[in-house]
Amino acid sequence: MSAPRLNNWQAVQDEVLRRIHAREWPPGALIPNEADLAVEFGCSRATVNRALRALADSGLLDRRRKAGTRVAAQPVAKATLDIAVIRHEVEGRGQAYGYQRLSRAEAVPPAAVSGAMGTASDRPLLHIRALHLADGRPYAVEDRWINTGVVPLARAEGFETVSANEWLLEHAPYTHGDIAFSAVMLGAEDAGTLDVAPAEAAFAIDRLTRDGPAAVTKVRLLFPPGYQLRTTL
Amino acid sequence: MSAPRLNNWQAVQDEVLRRIHAREWPPGALIPNEADLAVEFGCSRATVNRALRALADSGLLDRRRKAGTRVAAQPVAKATLDIAVIRHEVEGRGQAYGYQRLSRAEAVPPAAVSGAMGTASDRPLLHIRALHLADGRPYAVEDRWINTGVVPLARAEGFETVSANEWLLEHAPYTHGDIAFSAVMLGAEDAGTLDVAPAEAAFAIDRLTRDGPAAVTKVRLLFPPGYQLRTTL
Repeated sequence: MSAPRLNNWQAVQDEVLRRIHAREWPPGALIPNEADLAVEFGCSRATVNRALRALADSGLLDRRRKAGTRVAAQPVAKATLDIAVIRHEVEGRGQAYGYQRLSRAEAVPPAAVSGAMGTASDRPLLHIRALHLADGRPYAVEDRWINTGVVPLARAEGFETVSANEWLLEHAPYTHGDIAFSAVMLGAEDAGTLDVAPAEAAFAIDRLTRDGPAAVTKVRLLFPPGYQLRTTL
Repeated sequence: MSAPRLNNWQAVQDEVLRRIHAREWPPGALIPNEADLAVEFGCSRATVNRALRALADSGLLDRRRKAGTRVAAQPVAKATLDIAVIRHEVEGRGQAYGYQRLSRAEAVPPAAVSGAMGTASDRPLLHIRALHLADGRPYAVEDRWINTGVVPLARAEGFETVSANEWLLEHAPYTHGDIAFSAVMLGAEDAGTLDVAPAEAAFAIDRLTRDGPAAVTKVRLLFPPGYQLRTTL
């Protein structure tokens, strides 16, 4: 019997993950110690250690000093979503990308927006509405508020040919963001823009992007019925 | 001026990621070579190499032999979703979990289900409908088909007290799965189960889980209006 030779920690991680998913090591089970795994995998103990640490960080293993390492009793599967610029997403589907700016104004936002962004309730922000198209059909409507206190360059930009979605990625630093996915009923204006009947279900992505404590931008993207966001386990 | 001392590859990765997000190294820019970064970060060149390889694997850097390493021109942000058992998800929100099995039957599935699962169109599968509750209120309705050819143990299980969502995680091996998120209009039956008006927008999660080439189970989870799936960038 020839043992597998795993020569880097990612390969060890993949094999451990496979055993967890295949229930060769079921939830709650004690797994072999690092020295035994190093012999089995034909690699160094440090390599095994790095792989197990990464899996413990993702919540799949419980590591206890002296008590050894167990498969988590409540394993959480992780799915990764790629958040691309909409133009690249459309082009990645092999479709022709189109863009229409619908409106651009400096305006005092609704309280829900200034509240979420942490800006003064009477402070005007830059408000952009735009339509993204795929093969000439509406793909998503973008409703965005930009904090011009944080991104003053945006004041000089018309967003007539380049979407704020794409422009901000190039010009606005950020450190982190919150994303929420939900289902909403389309109002008359958005339904008209997306060219569907009102009171249809739309997929909504709400994103708030920050640079340190300051909110850079808040955007809602609405996708017409039929849109699916896909990933793998 | 004292340079930061980064003593492991994850710390180097975090710092490089920070510079990319902060646009200190903008999209398309050539970054310093590994030797210079190793001096700057006070770590070994191997540590820098490991961090840059990981970032290249995630699509944030383009590494070219001789031409050096550039920030990707079309950076893709990654968001991670935790896919937990629904009971743990509800309990993690600090709410009391409840469960009701609505129906259990061996039945020939609709063609869309057998097609997606790759089972013969006349082959009966196990069909379970169930309601998950949070603090006594409907949280999600589960509509699931189980391939009893792959999971014969499920034939003996009533799913009256333990959900198939939870039972399968313990008993059915899997290797990978596809997940799709979308918005759908609630039909009369699901709306009644979720105790909301019909023709409301519901958040749908469709999941197909495989063990190698064989489909283990296909499930649709429908969440009532107001549900949000959240993550961070």
